This record gives sequence, C-alpha cells and structure tokens, in this order.
Amino acid sequence: MSEAGVQAPAPAAVEVFPIERLREFSTRILRWREVPEEDARLAADVLATADLRGIDTHGVARLAQYVEMFERGWINPRPQLRVVRETLATATMDGDNGLGLVVGPRANRVAMDKADAAGSGSVAVRNSNHFGIGEYYALQGLPRDMIVWAMTNSPPQVAPLYGAEKMLGTNPMAIAFPGGEEPDVVIDVTTSAIAFGKVEHAARKGERIPEGCAVDRDGRMTTDPNEMLAGGALLPLGGDFQHGGHKGYCMAAMVDMLSAVLSGANWGPYPPPFPANLPAPPRYVGKGVGHFFMALRIDGFIDPAEFRSQVDDWVRTIRGTRPAAGTSGPMIPGDPNRRAEDTRRVDGVPVILPVVEQLRRLSAASGVPFD
Amino acid sequence: MSEAGVQAPAPAAVEVFPIERLREFSTRILRWREVPEEDARLAADVLATADLRGIDTHGVARLAQYVEMFERGWINPRPQLRVVRETLATATMDGDNGLGLVVGPRANRVAMDKADAAGSGSVAVRNSNHFGIGEYYALQGLPRDMIVWAMTNSPPQVAPLYGAEKMLGTNPMAIAFPGGEEPDVVIDVTTSAIAFGKVEHAARKGERIPEGCAVDRDGRMTTDPNEMLAGGALLPLGGDFQHGGHKGYCMAAMVDMLSAVLSGANWGPYPPPFPANLPAPPRYVGKGVGHFFMALRIDGFIDPAEFRSQVDDWVRTIRGTRPAAGTSGPMIPGDPNRRAEDTRRVDGVPVILPVVEQLRRLSAASGVPFD
Repeated sequence: MSEAGVQAPAPAAVEVFPIERLREFSTRILRWREVPEEDARLAADVLATADLRGIDTHGVARLAQYVEMFERGWINPRPQLRVVRETLATATMDGDNGLGLVVGPRANRVAMDKADAAGSGSVAVRNSNHFGIGEYYALQGLPRDMIVWAMTNSPPQVAPLYGAEKMLGTNPMAIAFPGGEEPDVVIDVTTSAIAFGKVEHAARKGERIPEGCAVDRDGRMTTDPNEMLAGGALLPLGGDFQHGGHKGYCMAAMVDMLSAVLSGANWGPYPPPFPANLPAPPRYVGKGVGHFFMALRIDGFIDPAEFRSQVDDWVRTIRGTRPAAGTSGPMIPGDPNRRAEDTRRVDGVPVILPVVEQLRRLSAASGVPFD
Repeated sequence: MSEAGVQAPAPAAVEVFPIERLREFSTRILRWREVPEEDARLAADVLATADLRGIDTHGVARLAQYVEMFERGWINPRPQLRVVRETLATATMDGDNGLGLVVGPRANRVAMDKADAAGSGSVAVRNSNHFGIGEYYALQGLPRDMIVWAMTNSPPQVAPLYGAEKMLGTNPMAIAFPGGEEPDVVIDVTTSAIAFGKVEHAARKGERIPEGCAVDRDGRMTTDPNEMLAGGALLPLGGDFQHGGHKGYCMAAMVDMLSAVLSGANWGPYPPPFPANLPAPPRYVGKGVGHFFMALRIDGFIDPAEFRSQVDDWVRTIRGTRPAAGTSGPMIPGDPNRRAEDTRRVDGVPVILPVVEQLRRLSAASGVPFD
C-alpha cells in the first residue's frame, strides 16, 4: 500500500520543560500565595509527580486553579493540621481547610508513622480539598516497605445505578506494591466508568462517548456528551446492571463512607466544588473534602524480600498471559505511568500551549520568573 | 389492556425450609465429616447467612461440594490455625488447609480482636479454601461497632485486559457500615463484569450474555456463553478499555496481592480449584487460597453514634435521588439481601429441588435426618 497522500501528524502544540523547572515554579507560585516553604515544596512534589507520570490533567495544568481558590479565600494557605481523635493504629485529622496537596501528604505520613509503631496505620481526613493524584500517596509507601492505600471523595459527577442525577464523586482509590527486579505494581483508578474529562473532550470534538458510561438528565443512557453535560451524569464503573454497574456504585459508596462519613467531611453530593467556578452544594453535612489513608508495614505480614520476589513472579506471570488477538497482551498496573516517568525524567515534560500561557500569566502576575 | 391469556408463572420448583433446620443439618453433616462441633457451627452459620440473604449459590447448595472435598482428602477437617507473623495491628495466619468457612471466621475474629487492642487489625490468611460469602465477614463487624473489610482470591476465571486466558479469580471484596435508624450499608461485590454462574445459566437456556463481559479462547469479545466456556474467560468489571476494564483488572489485582501475595498463598491463576472436579493448577506458588481481613474500630475515628447518624443521612440522601426514567430509583447497597433476610427469617428458605435431592442423598449417606 502506498504511503502517498498520508500526511505526517501536525507537530504537537507543546513546549517541553525539565521537571525541576516546573517543580520550582510551582513552589514559588505557592510561596507567593502565602504557603509556607515546606508546604509549598510538598504540594509542588505532588504536582510534579503527576507531570512526570503522564497524568497531565493533574500537574501544573492545575496550578492556576489552586491559585484562584487561594485568591477567592476558599483555601487556607497556612493550615494547622490537627488530630481530632486517635488510637495507636488510627486517627481522624482535620485539615483546617488547607490545600489537599499539603493536607494529604501530611496525613499520609501520620498513617505511615502509625504503621511504623503498630504494624498498620489508618487515617481519615476531613476539612481538606482536592488532593491531586492518588498514586502519589501510594508511591510514598514503597521506600518505607509499606503498602499504602489512598482514597478521596470528590464533587458529584456520578449517578448511583437507577439514578438520574449526580450524587457521588468519581471517588478514586490508589494502592502500590513494591517489586524487586520487576517494576512496582501501581494502581490508581476511579470508580466511575469514564472520566468527566473524556466527556468534555468528546463534546469539543463532536464525538460520541462509549455506550453505558453516562446518562442524560432523565437518567437514560446516552452516548451524546452534550446530553450528559446538560444535567446528566456519569455512570459508575460497569455501567448498567447487566454489566455490573451496581459494583462500581458500591465501590464509589465505599470510598465515600471511608473518606467522608468516617472523617466528618462532606459526603455524597455535598463536597465543595473543584475548580472554584462550579456552583456550591445546597448544604454542608461535614467539613470540606474527605480522604482515607491506610498504611500496612509489609514486614507485619511477610519478609519484605520474599514479598518483592513474589511480586516479581506475579508480574512475569501476568505479562506471560496469552495475548488477546490483535493486542500485545496485558499491561501491568502502572506500566504506562512508569514509562512516561522514565521518558520525562530524561527528555522533559511536554506542556500544552494553553497551559504554558496560564503559567506565563501566573508568572506575570506574581513576578516569579518562568522562562 | 386485558390480562386474558397472561398465565400465572409456573410455581417455582422449590421446597421451603426454616433456616434453623438447614443450619442444624449443615452442622451435623460437617460433624459427620470429622469437623469439631464449634467449627461445624461456625461453618454452618456462614452457609445459613448466605441462604438467609438470598445468595442461594453459596449456602446449603454448596454443602455437598464441601463434603466431596473432605472425602477426597483435599481439606483438613481439624485444622490447627497458626499465627505465622504478627505485630500489634497485623498478622499473617496459616489456615492449615482447613475449610474456608472455619478459617475465615477465625481469622476475621483475630482482625477484630486486634482492632479492639490497637484501633485497627489486618490479617492476611494463607493455606485456606473457599470462604463462602464475603458479606458474612463484613456483617460480623457491625455488633462490635467496627467496619470490616474482607476479600479473598479465587480460582482463575478472569482475563486481564488484553489477555486471552484466565489469570485471575473473580476476587470479591465486602465491607459494611452500620446504620442507626436506617439499615446498614452492606457491600459485597466481585471484581469481574459478571459471575461465572451467569454464563453457565445463559448456556443452559440458549441465551446470550451481555456484550463486553467475556472473551473467547482468542481473547475476542463474545456474547456466546459457549465460546467463553470453551477456553475463553470472563472480563474484569468494566469490560474493554473504553468502558474502564483496566479499572476492574486493577481491583482484581489488588485483591489478589493483599489476599495471596501478602499472605504466601497461591496468587494469579494458581489457587486450587473449587469445586474439586476442576483441574489442578500447573504449579503452586504458595499455600492454598488467600484471604485478607481488615477491621477498623469506628470509635478510633469518630463517635459511633455520630457515625450511625451520618450513615442514616447518607442512606436517605441517596434514596432521595431523582429516579432514572422507568425505574423506582437507586437502591442502597445491601437492600436486596436484607429484604431476602427479612422474608426468609419468617417464611423460610426456598431451596430448589436439585439441591433438596443433594441434601437427601447426604442424609441417606450420613444417617443425619433431613426430613
């Protein structure tokens, strides 16, 4: 077959930046918005991890939104985190309406410190905000030979099965298991069928969304992204009942219960909106957004070297699965993100031009140099 | 519209038994197979809970299969459970190849006792067998004001996304949250798109299975149950990539890691088969089937009365969701099972005739009276 007439794809409209430059810029912008140095570095690290691992929606692309929330006074730049209740292996913490990128990592450390002392540590968090990517928290456990399970609730996007309105967030959970010679197994998944971003993208492009992933304002299945956007909702993972949508709904409920009901945060449809230009919920049933972190010390169960060696065997076994026709076979959870990180650490992070423009505007407003 | 010509459904081919009679029969059959009295009562309680809660595939319908596994010498009727490693809040236990219906409840108690002492308790279990319904374990936490999370791996039925063979079990997880005036929220879900039983059922009836729930032996999507049965596999919750099948795969992997890799049980495609007439796996990478139990003391996070009151509010809020067109609106996780239990405690448990016949054969073989 001739290649004549096939055009090379247009060069992607991106600029490429070394990760350290993005990290430093985020830190300094947060310092400008009154965030203390150590907290600013912590938050910038969460954003940089997203940029490195290819989760472009959750890295520097969000920086302007966080700044806007500071400017509206919606987030406390200098939160005093507080343990409101605890046992040896559990705690509830109040995030004092701080940036989730600060509250989350600090609460996760408390969970890991408790695991050091007791074997496991579980921390429920209230009065926080959007905490960035879930896998950041799971990854923190690996150098400490811990398994960390992290989850958060989020503003409503998902209808419970047989519902016609948004009542639950996409409520993600993340967990990671350390490999030895093979890569770590890193899981970070939402409990909705698809991401809201996919609906927005399809609407912009005039495309359909997959069947069974969203409903219109009457709760009828739709593949038209505009019908979902006009008062409809996403569906839970699984979609309709026949395909197991009740299971995704149950998992979203579980994340909501542990993150928000257990901590005293806003559950169900009531978490405060993110970004700030969305309408506020009709009532508050707790404080802020909720998270839940659980850390398990691997040597509380098994010799960590033996565990890593079994994870290696697991990874090789799953990679050895006979591939489905027309595919190159299963991936291991975390593969795409690890590959992105390997590339981006060396070659830099591609940032799309609209985000580059946002960063330049932040630079102009703050006086923090960007270019 | 006239109702003429509409026939009443044929009376279901069932016999109805009071739950106490089924429970007593199971106990005495297990005693006959050398299971000690206390263990037999524990196992019979797990089966009775399934029968009460409408999970008919996991109650007395399984009794003959457990007996067969004892008769083949595959299960140890008098296991000596052993803690092989522990910290204050964690343990790994070896089930000594006992009945999962005995090993599971005992290990779950250890998790809850650890939670009493430390705030939370996590127990990984190896060298066990099929543990019955997951929600049994979650329900045990409620009278102790605990949240119990239970999961198990299971023999392979599910292809990882882009795989053409069975590499993971349907790996269920269960968790329950106590209500106050409203019912408890009880979650028990597998991580596969559909149950293997649905495929068998469709094959018997000559029906199709839903799209995106199974693959044939080449890993191609199929709606023909016979193609799945002839060397194909179930798909993870979500189905294909577009519908989030990678998320179901990740959740199945998570359950496998915590239940089996962490405990030293057989993970991935290697758990021993259940029932016993299935082929043995090609190799063993650990001991038996694995489970994972985690108990959280609610008062380690929040006042339990406040928690129950928030769960009530959550339940009412979700019930208040605007219903999807043509439905009566969302259910609360656990609703169908609780309703079954309410009815069956009073009216008895309907048992289909083939199972009644099995029980009569067990009665004849053992001398334990049934009718």
